[in-house]
Amino acid sequence: MAAQTVASTTDSTTVDLGPASALSCRECGHRVPLGPVFACEECFGPLEIAYDFSAYDTEELRKRIEAGPANIWRYAPLLPVPADVADKPNINPGWTKLVKADNLARELGVTGGLYVKDDSGNPTHSFKDRVVAQALEAARAFGFTTLSCSSTGNLAGAVGAAAARAGFRSCVFIPHDLEQGKVVMAAVYGGELVGIEGNYDDVNRFCSELIGDPAGEGWGFVNVNLRPYYAEGSKTLAYEICEQLGWKLPDQIVVPIASGSQLTKIDKGLQELIKLGLVEDRPYKIFGAQAEGCSPVSVAYKAGHDVVRPQKPNTIAKSLAIGNPADGPYVLDIARRTGGAVEDVNDEQVVDAIKLLARTEGIFAETAGGVTVGVTRKLIENGVLDPALTTVVLNTGDGLKTLDAVAGTGLTATIRPNLDSFREAGLA
Amino acid sequence: MAAQTVASTTDSTTVDLGPASALSCRECGHRVPLGPVFACEECFGPLEIAYDFSAYDTEELRKRIEAGPANIWRYAPLLPVPADVADKPNINPGWTKLVKADNLARELGVTGGLYVKDDSGNPTHSFKDRVVAQALEAARAFGFTTLSCSSTGNLAGAVGAAAARAGFRSCVFIPHDLEQGKVVMAAVYGGELVGIEGNYDDVNRFCSELIGDPAGEGWGFVNVNLRPYYAEGSKTLAYEICEQLGWKLPDQIVVPIASGSQLTKIDKGLQELIKLGLVEDRPYKIFGAQAEGCSPVSVAYKAGHDVVRPQKPNTIAKSLAIGNPADGPYVLDIARRTGGAVEDVNDEQVVDAIKLLARTEGIFAETAGGVTVGVTRKLIENGVLDPALTTVVLNTGDGLKTLDAVAGTGLTATIRPNLDSFREAGLA
Repeated sequence: MAAQTVASTTDSTTVDLGPASALSCRECGHRVPLGPVFACEECFGPLEIAYDFSAYDTEELRKRIEAGPANIWRYAPLLPVPADVADKPNINPGWTKLVKADNLARELGVTGGLYVKDDSGNPTHSFKDRVVAQALEAARAFGFTTLSCSSTGNLAGAVGAAAARAGFRSCVFIPHDLEQGKVVMAAVYGGELVGIEGNYDDVNRFCSELIGDPAGEGWGFVNVNLRPYYAEGSKTLAYEICEQLGWKLPDQIVVPIASGSQLTKIDKGLQELIKLGLVEDRPYKIFGAQAEGCSPVSVAYKAGHDVVRPQKPNTIAKSLAIGNPADGPYVLDIARRTGGAVEDVNDEQVVDAIKLLARTEGIFAETAGGVTVGVTRKLIENGVLDPALTTVVLNTGDGLKTLDAVAGTGLTATIRPNLDSFREAGLA
Repeated sequence: MAAQTVASTTDSTTVDLGPASALSCRECGHRVPLGPVFACEECFGPLEIAYDFSAYDTEELRKRIEAGPANIWRYAPLLPVPADVADKPNINPGWTKLVKADNLARELGVTGGLYVKDDSGNPTHSFKDRVVAQALEAARAFGFTTLSCSSTGNLAGAVGAAAARAGFRSCVFIPHDLEQGKVVMAAVYGGELVGIEGNYDDVNRFCSELIGDPAGEGWGFVNVNLRPYYAEGSKTLAYEICEQLGWKLPDQIVVPIASGSQLTKIDKGLQELIKLGLVEDRPYKIFGAQAEGCSPVSVAYKAGHDVVRPQKPNTIAKSLAIGNPADGPYVLDIARRTGGAVEDVNDEQVVDAIKLLARTEGIFAETAGGVTVGVTRKLIENGVLDPALTTVVLNTGDGLKTLDAVAGTGLTATIRPNLDSFREAGLA
C-alpha cells in the first residue's frame, strides 16, 4: 500500500467536517489535515479520523442526539460530517431496529437478554448504506463529482443509490461475470456500471491505478481514497445499540468480520461513548464471526497468532469473503483485550442459522447474518459466550439478496383444493 | 359473500382492542360486537371497525403519539389494538421514510413539493406488514393460535414473519406452481406453506371452505375473517404522512389500487385526523393508480360508471393484479368526491417509472411503485394533477421482489483492467 498524494479540488483547511479535526495514523500517530488520503506518508499505516469532542457537555449532547432525526445523522456531533448534514440530499440510513429476540434466546439458552441489530432495514438493505452515506459527505466536502467503488455486491447498490439521491455521477467497477441478479440491483440506479474483464483483485488493482491517474481526478472511491471517512459509518452501529438499550453498553456483541473494519469501528464507537460519559465505563466483550470457508482471522485467533495469513475464500457468505482482511490484526487485539473471541461456522451451519433466525424472530437474514447467529450458537455451546449476559448479534444484510443460500426451502405440502385433501395431509 | 358466524374461542364482550368499540356495516350501518366476522348479517356488506375517540384531547393525543415508538404502535390510540400493544411480540412495521424527492420533482415539473412514502423499509419490505401486524393483534385477542392467508407473494412472507415472532403457528396457502423465489421468501420463516393444485381463485375458495369447517377453528385468516382489523393497518400510512409533513395534510396523494382497500383506509385515516383536530380541515385529493393490464377501477372511472366490471389480469404489477377489486366502488366515490382521479399505465411505463425513481432518488421500487410514479407522471402530463401542489406518491414494496421487471438493466460498459481500455470506452 503506497502513500497517497491524490489531488483534491478543495483546500483541506477550509473543509467543514464537523468535529473531525485531522487524519491520524493508527500505527505511528502521525497527523495530516483532512483530505482524500488513506495511508500514512510516514509509515504507510492506515489513517483514521481524529476528533475534537472537548466542547461537549454530556447531558446536552444526549438531549441533542435524542431530539435528532431517526437516522444516523442524530449522531452528527460524533461523525466527520457538517452540522447541517441532515439537510443535504443523502440516503439517510440507520436507526434500524434492535429486536429483542426472546424466541431465539430460548432456543439458544440465553437468559441475560438477546437482541438482534437488524440492518436489513437500511435503504438498500445492508449496513453498507451507513458507510457510503459518510463517504458521500466527504466526497461533497472535497469537491468530488463522481462517486465510485470496486464491489461484488451490496456496496455497488449502496453507492448507486446514494449518488443518485445526491446528484453525483456514479461509476462502479465490478467483475464482468457477476450473477445477473446482482448486476440488476446495482444497475437500476442508472449510474455507470463497468464490468472489468478479470476477478475482484483485478478490479481493485485497476481502481488504485485510476486514483493515481489524471483520469481519476474528481473521483471519490468510497472504499479507497475516502476510506477513513467511510469506515466511521460503522461507529453508528455502536451508538444505536447503546442508545436503544437505554444508553447502556451490551455485555457481549457478536460482529461479522470481512475486512474487520466494522468490528474495530464498533469498538471505537463504544470507547467514545464511554469517554463522553454517555454510557457507564464498564467491561464489554466483542466477538468476531467468520465463515469457515473464509476464516483467516478465526484461524489466527485460535492459533494465538498476531498476524493473519491470507486465505482463498470459498463460502456462501460472499459479503464476508475477504481472504486478506486489512484490519485482521486489530480485530485480534480487540477480541483478546475485551475478553471476546473469534469463531467460525461452516456453510451448513450458516444456512441452519438463517432458518433458525427466520423461524424464531421473523427476520430473514443475509448469509452474513447466518454467520453471526451460527457463531453465537457455537460460542454458547462451547462455553465461550456467557448466556447469562446481555448479548447483541448483528445482522448486516437481507436474505432477499442471498436467496440461493436457502433455495432448498419450499412447500411443506401440496394438496387439492378441498377439505378431504387438507385432512389427508395431516394439516387439520 | 355469505354472512359469517365463525366461532371464536374468546367472548367478544371481553375483547380489549383499545378504542375499537364495534363492527359496523359500511352499507347499512348495522353494528355487531367485535369478533372474527367480516360481512354484515343483514345486508352482506363489508364490516369495518367503529371507534370511540370521544375521550381524546387533541394536544394530549398529539404528544402521546410523538412520544411513542418509531413504528405503527405510536398510533395505538387510533387502532383496534390494546394500549400495551408495543410490549407484545409483533413485527412492528411502519414509521418508514417520507422522502423529499427533489430530483424526481424536477424531472416531473412538480414545484409544490413532491414526496415518496417508501414502504420498502418495512420488516418484510412491503406495506403488507402494516396490515398483518393489525390482524395478528386481532388474532391474539380472539384466542386464535394459527395465522393463515391465501397469497401469491408479499402477504405470505409478512404472515410467516409475524407468526414466527409472535409464536403463532402459521399455515399459508398459495398456488402450487408459484415462482421458486417467491416460495423461498415465504417458506424461510418455517411455517406450513401449502401449495394448492389450482389457481389463486381455487386457493381463495378453499380458504373460505376451511373457515366454515370445524378444521378451521382457531384459525385467523388475515385477509378473510380478520379482514376488518387487517384493513385498518393502511390507515397508518395516512397518519405517518401527515405527521411527517409536520401534522399537515398533503394536497394530493397517489395510491396504488389492488382491492382498493388501502386507498379507502387512507381516506378514512385522513378524515379521522381532521375530526380529531390533529390536522387542519381543508381539501385534499386522492388519486388511484392501476396497471393497464389490470385496470378495472380506472376503466370504470373514465367511463363514469359507479360499478366495476371485473378483468382478467395480465400485467407485471402482480401485487396489484386483482381483477375484481372488492372496494372498487368506494375508490370511485373517494376519487370523485375529493377531486382526484383514477389512471393507469402500461407495463413499459411501469418499468420506465421504476428506473426513473431509482435514477433520481436512489429508491428501488417494486412494480407497484412503478405504477404510482408512472401514473403521477401521466396525470401531470394530462393536466389532471396540479404540479404546484404538495404531492405524496406511495411506494408500497421493494424492487428486490420483482427483479424480473428490470432484468434488461445491466452493464453500461465492459473493459479490460487498464487505463487505455477505460479511456477507449469514453468513461474518463
